[in-house]
Amino acid sequence: MAGNSFGKVFTLTSFGESHGAAIGGIIDGCPAGLKLDFEAIQTEMQRRKPGQSAIVTQRKEEDDVKFLSGIFEGVTTGTPIGFVIENTNQKSNDYSHIKNIYRPSHADYTYDKKYGIRDYRGGGRSSARETACRVVAGAIAKQLLSEIKINAFVSSVGNIFIDKPYQDLDFTKTESNSVRCPDMDSAAKMENLIKKIRKDGDTVGGTITCVLQNVPVGLGEPVFDKLHAELGKAMLSINAVKGFEYGSGFCGAKMKGSEHNDVFNPDGSTKSNLSGGIQGGISNGMDIYFRVAFKPVATLMQNQETIDTKGNKVIAEGKGRHDPCVVPRAVPIVEAMAALVLANFWLLNKINKLND
Amino acid sequence: MAGNSFGKVFTLTSFGESHGAAIGGIIDGCPAGLKLDFEAIQTEMQRRKPGQSAIVTQRKEEDDVKFLSGIFEGVTTGTPIGFVIENTNQKSNDYSHIKNIYRPSHADYTYDKKYGIRDYRGGGRSSARETACRVVAGAIAKQLLSEIKINAFVSSVGNIFIDKPYQDLDFTKTESNSVRCPDMDSAAKMENLIKKIRKDGDTVGGTITCVLQNVPVGLGEPVFDKLHAELGKAMLSINAVKGFEYGSGFCGAKMKGSEHNDVFNPDGSTKSNLSGGIQGGISNGMDIYFRVAFKPVATLMQNQETIDTKGNKVIAEGKGRHDPCVVPRAVPIVEAMAALVLANFWLLNKINKLND
Amino acid sequence: MAGNSFGKVFTLTSFGESHGAAIGGIIDGCPAGLKLDFEAIQTEMQRRKPGQSAIVTQRKEEDDVKFLSGIFEGVTTGTPIGFVIENTNQKSNDYSHIKNIYRPSHADYTYDKKYGIRDYRGGGRSSARETACRVVAGAIAKQLLSEIKINAFVSSVGNIFIDKPYQDLDFTKTESNSVRCPDMDSAAKMENLIKKIRKDGDTVGGTITCVLQNVPVGLGEPVFDKLHAELGKAMLSINAVKGFEYGSGFCGAKMKGSEHNDVFNPDGSTKSNLSGGIQGGISNGMDIYFRVAFKPVATLMQNQETIDTKGNKVIAEGKGRHDPCVVPRAVPIVEAMAALVLANFWLLNKINKLND
Amino acid sequence: MAGNSFGKVFTLTSFGESHGAAIGGIIDGCPAGLKLDFEAIQTEMQRRKPGQSAIVTQRKEEDDVKFLSGIFEGVTTGTPIGFVIENTNQKSNDYSHIKNIYRPSHADYTYDKKYGIRDYRGGGRSSARETACRVVAGAIAKQLLSEIKINAFVSSVGNIFIDKPYQDLDFTKTESNSVRCPDMDSAAKMENLIKKIRKDGDTVGGTITCVLQNVPVGLGEPVFDKLHAELGKAMLSINAVKGFEYGSGFCGAKMKGSEHNDVFNPDGSTKSNLSGGIQGGISNGMDIYFRVAFKPVATLMQNQETIDTKGNKVIAEGKGRHDPCVVPRAVPIVEAMAALVLANFWLLNKINKLND
Repeated sequence: MAGNSFGKVFTLTSFGESHGAAIGGIIDGCPAGLKLDFEAIQTEMQRRKPGQSAIVTQRKEEDDVKFLSGIFEGVTTGTPIGFVIENTNQKSNDYSHIKNIYRPSHADYTYDKKYGIRDYRGGGRSSARETACRVVAGAIAKQLLSEIKINAFVSSVGNIFIDKPYQDLDFTKTESNSVRCPDMDSAAKMENLIKKIRKDGDTVGGTITCVLQNVPVGLGEPVFDKLHAELGKAMLSINAVKGFEYGSGFCGAKMKGSEHNDVFNPDGSTKSNLSGGIQGGISNGMDIYFRVAFKPVATLMQNQETIDTKGNKVIAEGKGRHDPCVVPRAVPIVEAMAALVLANFWLLNKINKLND
Repeated sequence: MAGNSFGKVFTLTSFGESHGAAIGGIIDGCPAGLKLDFEAIQTEMQRRKPGQSAIVTQRKEEDDVKFLSGIFEGVTTGTPIGFVIENTNQKSNDYSHIKNIYRPSHADYTYDKKYGIRDYRGGGRSSARETACRVVAGAIAKQLLSEIKINAFVSSVGNIFIDKPYQDLDFTKTESNSVRCPDMDSAAKMENLIKKIRKDGDTVGGTITCVLQNVPVGLGEPVFDKLHAELGKAMLSINAVKGFEYGSGFCGAKMKGSEHNDVFNPDGSTKSNLSGGIQGGISNGMDIYFRVAFKPVATLMQNQETIDTKGNKVIAEGKGRHDPCVVPRAVPIVEAMAALVLANFWLLNKINKLND
Repeated sequence: MAGNSFGKVFTLTSFGESHGAAIGGIIDGCPAGLKLDFEAIQTEMQRRKPGQSAIVTQRKEEDDVKFLSGIFEGVTTGTPIGFVIENTNQKSNDYSHIKNIYRPSHADYTYDKKYGIRDYRGGGRSSARETACRVVAGAIAKQLLSEIKINAFVSSVGNIFIDKPYQDLDFTKTESNSVRCPDMDSAAKMENLIKKIRKDGDTVGGTITCVLQNVPVGLGEPVFDKLHAELGKAMLSINAVKGFEYGSGFCGAKMKGSEHNDVFNPDGSTKSNLSGGIQGGISNGMDIYFRVAFKPVATLMQNQETIDTKGNKVIAEGKGRHDPCVVPRAVPIVEAMAALVLANFWLLNKINKLND
Repeated sequence: MAGNSFGKVFTLTSFGESHGAAIGGIIDGCPAGLKLDFEAIQTEMQRRKPGQSAIVTQRKEEDDVKFLSGIFEGVTTGTPIGFVIENTNQKSNDYSHIKNIYRPSHADYTYDKKYGIRDYRGGGRSSARETACRVVAGAIAKQLLSEIKINAFVSSVGNIFIDKPYQDLDFTKTESNSVRCPDMDSAAKMENLIKKIRKDGDTVGGTITCVLQNVPVGLGEPVFDKLHAELGKAMLSINAVKGFEYGSGFCGAKMKGSEHNDVFNPDGSTKSNLSGGIQGGISNGMDIYFRVAFKPVATLMQNQETIDTKGNKVIAEGKGRHDPCVVPRAVPIVEAMAALVLANFWLLNKINKLND
């Protein structure tokens, strides 16, 4: 009810503020018998953690996940998987300057109004540090769905866009550069832009595209829990996300039906794929692809006018260690959330017809 | 689990295929003591129903909702509100021609693969007729939230867009034209476009913008159930929707933080509102606005190449009574879903802090 | 949230007051491909309905269930099964005498205090008429679980108890008498007792024993959703139930471990079965048996002292058509609820380990 | 879904095996603004922990709970409360002798069959150690419900019963003796019995009675989530519980309606209280009381015949450190679960009618 759980069958419930003792979570509903690759999990953690390169925040957080239950001799037992990630590098004093102010376009004001109390240190629960738990659960979900290929990448930063269809990209190059853009020309331009933005003490937004391949036909539930509706919710629940589109997306809204319809091949695949791999909320076996818009990070390395908790005008100082552009680090988060959505539907799909 | 319920507190569970005896639903969790305005409910039903004007389908469905429980002497009792809407005008024989074929970009193929069985008549459960139940529940949610103003309207059809900010529009004009566009010039152009498209036996997509005003501060739950994540899911669950953005949306992804941040006024309101009335997933009291993309309807009044259930090439004939453009009729559905999302968070908000 | 749904996977949501237009429900999550035996469903309805014999209420309710969706050509489609049962025989005027009074040991007072409003006609939502919806869903669940045998029977009325273990009973005799007691001697005594009680305008309590056989090993979830915890909740949710015990039950609390432990046979079955077929909340393949206590019906055919809604002393008149003993009619309800519990765990069991 | 969460609004999700690194949980939905008394929480932990007295297991577990989130400067923030309790005293080697055997009346066999894998050390997830997490959450729920008095006590051990109504007992004496029985004469007899049983290497069952006082009118949801149905489920989910009854319970099943009905006083209270403080599933303001049956612990300090995982006959040796009678230590667990049930309904009750 309080919004800290995701998934009805393969369920992640997370906890933790950025400057408490630890963050962590419980994964309930992971089937028994899954042999876990812990290195692969840690690799995903590394992809998300701060301080990886010159274009992201220099905060160092080791983000070592410690599993406490649900695994016996490396294999899931069907019981809940509890885990914690200690907050080793928090410097709470860094945040005393924001104790009594509401930073612009942050959650300070709304948390205070909603709860009447706020752990102001590092944004508390509203910090993107929470997404580390999503990456843990997503990494396990990926292992459950070993047949499915999940590839996200940065498709734009500011006004620099990859101008190729995803089919022309080599996803193995995504991790080859600090922007996580598989198109090397665009990657270089994006990197330069971010460096420039950073020098100005500013931030910039961008988009991530995600492609899901080898998804079995039949995932998704009709009506309210359509596959793309859950994907949309999952993505919109990530900090800083402002938009989601799949298949033809907003462009599709300009098209005519005669252009937009995907004609079938005899085997049930389709010649075009403006549907984005989903029809009636259910996967049809074609590639699923979607795009996620991230706003620029609100924390600037500039002074900004704002108010304190009493409504007085004050200056929010630009200090701390923050990302000039969040999208490269959000790539593993997008993949993790996609994996969680798919894992849920994949499990549910085992019970929606008899004689399966 | 099976995706036919929406909302955790104020919950709509719906049932029904387009050509069964009836569709209907149960609204569970509506607080006791709400005096219902049944005429207002029926007005919403009229807005959604087919056959309202020259630019929508000529199917006549009366869509009279019959309440069966949960209401005593016109007032909600706190017990579940059951309702049915009879399918009076279904012509099942109209559909015998699609019994064994998979229509392009419909849910025929995916339902068949998922369930191994399909009520092919009129699309069965995948028919947009299901949205009538959403409108019933949304109409009640609107009455619960009498302070909040919910206004959706058609903001584009094909390549015709309203080129004004929503603040310059007069929402009282939305219902003055058949397109449900409050900008009269754009409305006329859209109407002409739809008529032309219709004559060609084709269809066209469009977008709906929705503005939520007077929303109390504090609605939305952090992390997974952010207010905009639930709005996004709600919208993406509507048939034919391909994208959702709120506040600055996809444009925000091109911006710099110094441009995007909303500076506070002393009263906690903000000078700009690129955040779209939501910060950290929680309403901040400013207007919430979002945009929803609808693809063109897949059913054309043209013959289309497709396959039958055995994979043979066949021609899907263009017949029946269908909308050339679904967006005008989707306006009340967008509003209904927004109302359901808000009602849930509005109720939840009563229990998230002590001494409320 | 509001308590009108049962089951997380195979979910019944019900609605309806005893004197509204209809009661009904939605069964969501029934797998596709189940060929329904409608006669078997109606047979269960007949078992529950009033007016079956001399020892139950003479109210005549036909309780014909009308399915509205989710079934195509007699087979479930995987979409929600909506159904209604019309309230054809309600005589609302019968209840004007209780409009302003709180009947002793009924829910009149608590509903009024909880909701501030109450549909007083026939007890409204608190009427046991609501259980008809459970019987519909249970009848379908039984068909899903065709391998499992579910047999409930009346094991005591007042102080008359069957003094044999269930293994000595022939369940095919349960329906042979109006009390639904498979032990013919006890049945005759119970019937006489009920007739006598009825003549006095009084009512009497009793117990129902239920035996579940052929249950696969592995049903039930550990910790909070233990199989017997869900069975207990299911039974305690039936009107008038005051207690639940399974296996050795309250007697087990007097025993020593050396007496109580069930010794294994080589095949995993156990020599004794004081565990009642469940160990650690999970079925072990042995018979599951439990006992449910029903209080005497609160409505008497006698005048009773009570209060009106203002707190004045008044006399509640004994009139209307009521059961002197509710347990015979509760037998199919107990079976239905057991079937719902089992159906949920049976479906869940398909996803709790890999390579199933 | 997988049964490791309890409560829909104030939700405990727990994890942990008895011999993993730690057990723990997440409490989601605790309202913001509750000032926590950590000493009171630790006191509850002490009541449950092993090694408290001569009549319980001599295992020493410190059971120090460490809160990781959701609390700021001693006050709940509305965000999830994560906590861990380290397993400091586990001796996994103690359990190598049960690695390949199924102990009688334990969950070894059923876990293995259900999941295909089992953490055999100390019973793994099926260990009652899991209940420590319930006590943590229950202790916080108690603080939320500061007005409500929750008193559980041992009402029988083996054949020794308190033969007084609860109204004649002084609950302040419950903690004065090692059996947690407020009737000193009975307590002495029970203690002697347990010592004798222990000397024999045997175990014995018992019952706990729990009384809830000062419960506001209106808690509980009608139909499936009746207050006593949730209490019953909560109790039946505790290890070793075989039965639950409230109010008149199984005795009520022998009574006549004219004896059983509770006559109202003018203020809405009732002269008698066979209803047990609940009518129609909703609290009526009178004392709620219920009784819970616990079977004798299955682990004996005697050798027992059993089978190994291959079905061969083997002897399960009686060793380790176990309770001869679990009921004294279960008293705080019963209270904790009652508190969780009440907290959920207490919160839900804030949203079930308008103008509250």
